[in-house]
This record gives sequence, C-alpha cells and structure tokens, in this order.
Amino acid sequence: MTEKFYIERLTVIGVGLIGGSLIRALKRADCVGQVTGCGRTREALEPALELGVIDRAGDSVAAAVADADLVVLATPPSTSGELFAAMREALPEHTVITDVGSAKGSVIQAARDHLTAEQFSRFVPGHPVAGTEKSGVEASFADLFDAHRVILTPVNETDPAALAMVETLWQHAGAEVIRMPARQHDATLAATSHLPHMLAYALVDCLAGMGEHRDIFRYAAGGFADFTRIASSSPQMWHDICFANRDELLDVMARFQEQLTTLTAAIENDDRQTVVNMFERAKAARDRFSDLRAAGGTVVGSGDSSE
Amino acid sequence: MTEKFYIERLTVIGVGLIGGSLIRALKRADCVGQVTGCGRTREALEPALELGVIDRAGDSVAAAVADADLVVLATPPSTSGELFAAMREALPEHTVITDVGSAKGSVIQAARDHLTAEQFSRFVPGHPVAGTEKSGVEASFADLFDAHRVILTPVNETDPAALAMVETLWQHAGAEVIRMPARQHDATLAATSHLPHMLAYALVDCLAGMGEHRDIFRYAAGGFADFTRIASSSPQMWHDICFANRDELLDVMARFQEQLTTLTAAIENDDRQTVVNMFERAKAARDRFSDLRAAGGTVVGSGDSSE
Repeated sequence: MTEKFYIERLTVIGVGLIGGSLIRALKRADCVGQVTGCGRTREALEPALELGVIDRAGDSVAAAVADADLVVLATPPSTSGELFAAMREALPEHTVITDVGSAKGSVIQAARDHLTAEQFSRFVPGHPVAGTEKSGVEASFADLFDAHRVILTPVNETDPAALAMVETLWQHAGAEVIRMPARQHDATLAATSHLPHMLAYALVDCLAGMGEHRDIFRYAAGGFADFTRIASSSPQMWHDICFANRDELLDVMARFQEQLTTLTAAIENDDRQTVVNMFERAKAARDRFSDLRAAGGTVVGSGDSSE
Repeated sequence: MTEKFYIERLTVIGVGLIGGSLIRALKRADCVGQVTGCGRTREALEPALELGVIDRAGDSVAAAVADADLVVLATPPSTSGELFAAMREALPEHTVITDVGSAKGSVIQAARDHLTAEQFSRFVPGHPVAGTEKSGVEASFADLFDAHRVILTPVNETDPAALAMVETLWQHAGAEVIRMPARQHDATLAATSHLPHMLAYALVDCLAGMGEHRDIFRYAAGGFADFTRIASSSPQMWHDICFANRDELLDVMARFQEQLTTLTAAIENDDRQTVVNMFERAKAARDRFSDLRAAGGTVVGSGDSSE
C-alpha cells in the first residue's frame, strides 16, 4: 500500500448485490483500478459488464485471480470451499483474500482446509452488515455500506498487514469496521438476523398455507409489512446461511421455541401476569435498542437482508 | 343525519392514540360539534383538554354519555363489559354506539350481555386497522386513518341506519370502510397482527435474556429494527388483545409452532430441499403481498400497532 490507498487489480467472485455495491463504492472513492468479475457462467456476468461495474470477466476462478492484488469472495458461504480450492494454485504470492459471508466459522474452516498456510494468513474473514431484500448486480449501489458496520473476524494466523488492508478497503467503501471473534459474530448474527429470517419465512409460509390467505394478506397492514419484509430475501442465499451457521442457529431457535411455549402456556392458562411481564421486558429492551440506534451506537439502515 | 354529515354531540371513552386521532380527524373534516371525553380519572383527561382534543370531561361514564348522539369506546377490549353496563341506564334512545377494539367476538358478546336489545341494535362493532407503536393522546394525529381500512363487523340485529352512520363517520375520518363477519375478522387479525406481535415480543425477550444482550443488540441492524418494531407497542394493550382474541390466537400460534418445528427438523436433518421450498413459498407469498400493497389493494401505513 502506498500513502494513497489504491488497489490496482481487484477480483470479485460473485458480482451480486454485495459484490457489485462494494465495487461501486470503491469506484466512488476512486481507489480501485481494473476490476475483474467471476461468476458461475460467462452469461451471469453480462449484466455486470453492461452496467460497467466490472471491466472484464474471468473465464475461470484461476484465471480471474491470477494477477489480483485483492480477491473478494461475495458468494454464498457454502461455495467457499470449492472456490478456495480453485484459486489455490493460481493465487499470486502477495494477494490478500477476503469474503463477505454472513457466517464466519464455516468459511474460516473452509479457508483453513483449502488454502496453503501462507495464503490462509492473508485471508481476512469479513461480513458487511448491510443489504436489502433485493439481490443481483442490478440492485447494487455505491451507498449501500455508508454508515453500516463491517465485522472482521481475524484469527491468530491472520497477517496484520492483510487485516489492515481489508479494514482500509471497507472504510473507503463508507463502512465502519469493527473486529470480533468469529464465534461471537456467529452467535450474535444467529440471534439478531438469522433467527428473525427463519421466523419471517415460517410465518408467511404458515399463513400462505391457511387456504384463505389471499384475504388474510389483503387485510394485513403496515406492521405486518415491516415484520415480514425479510421474507422477501433470496431463498437460495438464506438456505445457504442457515446451514453455514447451523449450530448457532439451532441453538437460538431452541431458545426461542421455549420462550414461545412459555407464552402460549401463559395465554392458555389465563396467566396474565406472565404475559404482561414478558411484553414489558421486551418493550424495555426494544426501546433501549431504539435509543442505541438513535445515539448512533448501532448501524442505521433498512431491510438488511444479508446481515 | 342531515345531508351534511354532522355529529352534534360526540362522546369518546378512552382518549388515547385512536380515540384522540379520531376526534382530530373529525374536526379536520368539520363534522363534529361538542366532544366529551371520558377516562378512568379526571387527571387522565387533562392532556386531552389542554391539547383541545376534547371540549369537556365527563365525570362518569353515565354522565359522559347522557346527551351523546354517538358514543365511541376507544379503550382496551377487556373494559367493554363494565363500560356497557355503566352506560346502560344513561344512554339516550337514539344514541349510536361503536368501538375500536382489535378483537370483535368478545366485544360483541359483552355488548349483548350488558346492553338492552334496543341499545345492542345500535351498537356497531368496528376496528380501525391503524396505529403506531406509540400510545396516548399526545401521539394522536388527524391523518392516522387516511388511506387505512376500518373493518365493521355488524351482526344480524344491527340497525342499518346505525351501521350507515358509523360507516360515514369513518369515511369522513379518511378511512376506507369494509364489512366482514366478526369471526373472519378475528381469525384474520390473529394471523396477520396478533401472532406477529407475540413473535416480536417473544424474540426480543428471548434475546434480552441471553445475558450478553447489550452486545447482541449493538450489532443488530435495519432488518432487526423493522422486525421488532412492534415489540415497542403498549404491553398493557397487547396483553389485553391477547386474551380478548384468545381462541383464535392460540389456534394460529399452534399452527406456527408446528411450522417452526418442521423448519427446525429440516435444518437439523440437513434436509435442504424442505428448507429452500419453505423459503421459496414464503418469498412468493410475501412478494404477492407487496404487489397487492403497491396496487392499493391493501392499506398503506407503517408500524401499525393496534391492527
């Protein structure tokens, strides 16, 4: 890195909402040179080429990373293993690698399994806590990460220079960067993002299965719209996140089901005190969360879907 | 009713967000004369008097309704029985009565139990599907019902003239009025409003109980904020709605728990097809709901809390 932060050759594998928005944000900051995209197929990259988001399309993962200074994996976490394996022989010695996956433990394990120790030290696990319920490069925009958080989860082996480079990258993309252990990240996201998505999907599917659902949805209002917005997120992506963070997610789903069983029993048994106590504790916690957001203590955004 | 719709004497029992907003909306439309408020205590009505929302405060339910042309109950559903009993001896012969409760079956039963048959025929059960997570007259505003739906659930005995009056009232307040049977209303609202509130309260309380919750909430983002906004709604009011619509709510809570158990088992058993199928059905249903809203087929609003 020179004094002015600049990446001569950037390769982004998976040019969708997140990958596309990162490229746009770096171009906005004028800190990126040639951008190579890599997708499942050549056709999948056409929109990104036509929109001018990428400059060229790599014919294979190996070809796409062959002269890269930085490689960003912006694909579902489940693809990480095969992608690391495919780039292993082709990666230049200096290349830094990062990713944007919503679950970190499984991606770190895949990197450990498929990269050389040298390469693994230059892999910086990351997660931009931003998104919308839309997907695809057409939905990408340069401001997506502004005032949002990016969580980096380096391990003991992570090279400090590589970590610093990825940190600076995200700062130039408009984000606030924080670091935490991967396990803490995965538990936190399971609770505040992955579980809510499960509940939203399960609720909408439950209602849709009630037969007269056209009418049910017809009389639903704003609260329902807010509550279920995340159920419009990509099924493929969320199915992938589910299994990438499986253990943490199952843990928090079990806790939630216990809670719901307690509430149901209280309503059945006319135990009004238990019900009102639960609602009051929840309101107090939610109001504190609002205050935290208002004070800038947490990210401001809406409809984040790859949180 | 004369050609110009005008209510000489309106009495509102419970001058909070909904009651206060209805009065403001009717004043905006210049179709209301003297407004009498009634509350649990005289002090509870001071803010409404100071804000000029009501013109006078009734010293008792009986006194407040004694010269009313229309009485609006805008209190929690559980209070309906005692309020109907308190007004029974004092109601003028021509007075029309309506309410704004989120559950209709239990309120209709209370009216049947505590009013005379004559009075019961002039009771028009209603529910404005609007609100915010705030409460109290200070949060009331004239536009609350604009472009929102009000559902009226008349019974066989309901006097057509009384029904027409309440319908016109809500239209002047800016709302679109629809009619449906009370049972359909209660089942629909249990699914699209009451159940989501239970899930939001249960989720936030579950997370708050996880010890490290300050940090958990710190890293939550926009999707979580939208998903949990309704958990900031009034615990007292929602505890009341819970029990007022108990049977319908328990029915849909049981369906939801089955659904969540299916999803949990699929994640545990690595049954990816079941997971992705559920997410795809949910996304399709949620996208149809979005289209319906965009086409004006349902109400437009945000954060409705007394839906």
